Amino acid sequence: MGKKLTKRAEDYSKWYNELVVRADLAENSGVRGSMVIKPYGYAIWEKMQAELDRMFKETGHENAYFPLFIPKSYLSREADHVEGFAKECAVVTHYRLKNAEDGSGVIVDPDAKLEEELIVRPTSETIIWDTYKKWIQSYRDLPVKVNQWANVVRWEMRTRLFLRTSEFLWQEGHTAHATKEEAIEEAELMMNIYAKFAEEFMAVPVVKGLKTESERFAGALETYCIEALMQDGKALQAGTSHFLGQNFAKAFDVKYATKDGKQEYVWATSWGVSTRLMGALVMTHSDDNGLVLPPKLAPIQVVIVPIYKGEEQLDAISERVAGLVQELRAKGISVKFDNRDTHKPGWKFNEYELKGVPVRLGIGMRDMENNTFEVARRDTLEKQTVAADQVVDHVSALLEDIQENIFKKAIDYRATHITEVDTFEDFKEVLENKGGFISAHWDGTAETEDKIKELTKATIRCIPLDAKAEEGVCVYSGKPSGRRVLFAKAY
Amino acid sequence: MGKKLTKRAEDYSKWYNELVVRADLAENSGVRGSMVIKPYGYAIWEKMQAELDRMFKETGHENAYFPLFIPKSYLSREADHVEGFAKECAVVTHYRLKNAEDGSGVIVDPDAKLEEELIVRPTSETIIWDTYKKWIQSYRDLPVKVNQWANVVRWEMRTRLFLRTSEFLWQEGHTAHATKEEAIEEAELMMNIYAKFAEEFMAVPVVKGLKTESERFAGALETYCIEALMQDGKALQAGTSHFLGQNFAKAFDVKYATKDGKQEYVWATSWGVSTRLMGALVMTHSDDNGLVLPPKLAPIQVVIVPIYKGEEQLDAISERVAGLVQELRAKGISVKFDNRDTHKPGWKFNEYELKGVPVRLGIGMRDMENNTFEVARRDTLEKQTVAADQVVDHVSALLEDIQENIFKKAIDYRATHITEVDTFEDFKEVLENKGGFISAHWDGTAETEDKIKELTKATIRCIPLDAKAEEGVCVYSGKPSGRRVLFAKAY
Repeated sequence: MGKKLTKRAEDYSKWYNELVVRADLAENSGVRGSMVIKPYGYAIWEKMQAELDRMFKETGHENAYFPLFIPKSYLSREADHVEGFAKECAVVTHYRLKNAEDGSGVIVDPDAKLEEELIVRPTSETIIWDTYKKWIQSYRDLPVKVNQWANVVRWEMRTRLFLRTSEFLWQEGHTAHATKEEAIEEAELMMNIYAKFAEEFMAVPVVKGLKTESERFAGALETYCIEALMQDGKALQAGTSHFLGQNFAKAFDVKYATKDGKQEYVWATSWGVSTRLMGALVMTHSDDNGLVLPPKLAPIQVVIVPIYKGEEQLDAISERVAGLVQELRAKGISVKFDNRDTHKPGWKFNEYELKGVPVRLGIGMRDMENNTFEVARRDTLEKQTVAADQVVDHVSALLEDIQENIFKKAIDYRATHITEVDTFEDFKEVLENKGGFISAHWDGTAETEDKIKELTKATIRCIPLDAKAEEGVCVYSGKPSGRRVLFAKAY
Repeated sequence: MGKKLTKRAEDYSKWYNELVVRADLAENSGVRGSMVIKPYGYAIWEKMQAELDRMFKETGHENAYFPLFIPKSYLSREADHVEGFAKECAVVTHYRLKNAEDGSGVIVDPDAKLEEELIVRPTSETIIWDTYKKWIQSYRDLPVKVNQWANVVRWEMRTRLFLRTSEFLWQEGHTAHATKEEAIEEAELMMNIYAKFAEEFMAVPVVKGLKTESERFAGALETYCIEALMQDGKALQAGTSHFLGQNFAKAFDVKYATKDGKQEYVWATSWGVSTRLMGALVMTHSDDNGLVLPPKLAPIQVVIVPIYKGEEQLDAISERVAGLVQELRAKGISVKFDNRDTHKPGWKFNEYELKGVPVRLGIGMRDMENNTFEVARRDTLEKQTVAADQVVDHVSALLEDIQENIFKKAIDYRATHITEVDTFEDFKEVLENKGGFISAHWDGTAETEDKIKELTKATIRCIPLDAKAEEGVCVYSGKPSGRRVLFAKAY
């Protein structure tokens, strides 16, 4: 604890890094670009996983596990895919170490060179479609709707905790379908599930949309995405769902016999979200005092801090608190009673504020006399005194209120940070001084998209699915456009 | 489906491989030594994970995540550890591919060579203790009780699905303690948790014991283990828990300040179980017809198969079954109603037998008239007719009975396959003709242990914790011995 966090207004990026480390979410490791996810951060990720996994299973998906290593030649099978993915990755070339002759440690054994190098998976389309070839023969074998929770590696030169790390954790769904329509429906379903998860659990509002051709996943015909807006006005891609057409089926020769005995290539999707969501969670809600966590994902929803002098007072408080803890737990609320005598109440208050615990209950001698608790909510930092016999209901309602309130706050922030502009001057001005999403007409060409990116660093985050048809002219080229798209600088 | 499984008596090893593949548990992948865990197999693993994770958390452990890659130099820090582990492993030497100039695909970019090679973790003691150095300063920071669910890689030349694969899934717990006593207590606690899990959930009886020095984990002062016995008379190490002393604390310089301000090295444990447990599960209970799964870990506990002609009959049966499915689910029993019209009842019966579904309910027109179900239990293959209004209670009790029965069967098998021998002739004879555990006196030396292994391929599986003090002479050397140990051929 000790010194205060850097303020967001001072240095947003520094605030984020400090917060992630000091709130015990994650830290850098001795391995360049790889992070350690600490128990408190991992507990949040586990809650995310549990909800997502439930949503996947409810929609008919099953989990499985595929190899970490991909033979190098697999990557070359789908031409676009290799262009987009094969470059920055970890390559395994040897399978044995041996003692150095000078006794200085171990060295790579030159005799143990692999015939074909193995790539640590940056994503698993190739190894999975190589497997699906064995699983799919007939229309009876379809659809295949499989997900895996896994680690992946994409070599990154500039890394940031959760947002961009060489190794990260994610889930990747890979489905196979008999028809194009069914595959598109699946890709859209998963985008909708991601959006629902982001909004209802993370309390992070997202725009659902399509990526432009240049921002699409390598090998996809269409990439659906959800885009969130951080408090510094930068966008963050929070999840993607790809309609892959028959590209991977063709690359790995996966055909099925239709009911009338014809051989057809299978249609595919893939979709994923990663530990990057942790970055989105932190950056959407947190403040200069520390994390603000949505109650639905908080590992500790309620902390109870006793304010006392001497063992006798602590015993009396502990006795009073025991029943309350049980009642709250019976309601499915996770509670921690912090009775450590190694730290003072003020220190604990700061710690739980930093760690974003949604509700804090304080109880001292005056509360004991009055039969009350002091209830503090993390989102607004408001405090109030509540009668002991009402505290369970109060806390229960308060948790729901906090979940809604932080979502509303994020919605309001975003609403004031989507700016319609119609000239390139305004575009640059808004981007520079206000940030956020810029809603502007675009002529639909990659050239204009590239040029705008080159001049402003803003990219097209998505073509919103709910964009209205609207005649206009491209903000850069002046050519005609049928609807607005969203630009932003992005993580 | 189609042709029958190889029989156990014919070729146990072939039976196992066929069963794992045909019951949809796992299969080999295009990557040498790496398997694909299929959805049905993974669903069993998920159930194992859920129970173990609950047991870990109930005993105060938290999950976290550490990097996949370990810098090569870390491995050399603990001398015994590197001897035992550093040799057969996957080595990452480069971080980029590039297009081959001849357009033939991608090649490793020679300019992207790592300064220090990275090892894909074979186990994580080194990277974790490098991290604990940052986490532990004072007695207030202890104990640290962390677990991670992860994939690990140990290069294997001869692999077998689940039993020995280059990549496998596991959990590894790594704890740090202020005192030696506390660390030993932790190591014993985790061995006991593993034993409880194996017996109560997997229905696999295990012997708790200590490894001999030569069989110990590389870097451990003591290795506790649980040993199970397979139906072919070979032993399988199902889990290990290591007391690491201060070896890793010294190697990574992890000290803590005691209450009176002294600097002391930290005491450590590590413990793990892996997807190998899947192999133990299969080999303990299954028979020539297929898998036999303990109800507590079966993804589908009850399957209902309709026997009908035409849609009208199916509709009538479906209506009758709907309420039953709900009632069973309300009791927390997982049920599948297989109403597919693409397969005949006989085919389905075989399929669920192969997949080890504990209870199968059949319902045809006669059952409709009599208001009954045909109830078949997978373990004994017995069938009986049960009145519809009693079927929920019947099935509920039956699931418990099956869980107990297969455990008892395994206990009985083991009881008749622990043979006390007192001469080396008997030792060889029993090992050759009967198999199982051989309980024999051993003089306590590594020389004798090695010699016996060389002559018979049997190893000391463990020194059972409950071994009675008993004067005797070593079965091989004739030197004095204070208690019997368990020998066996092992997986």
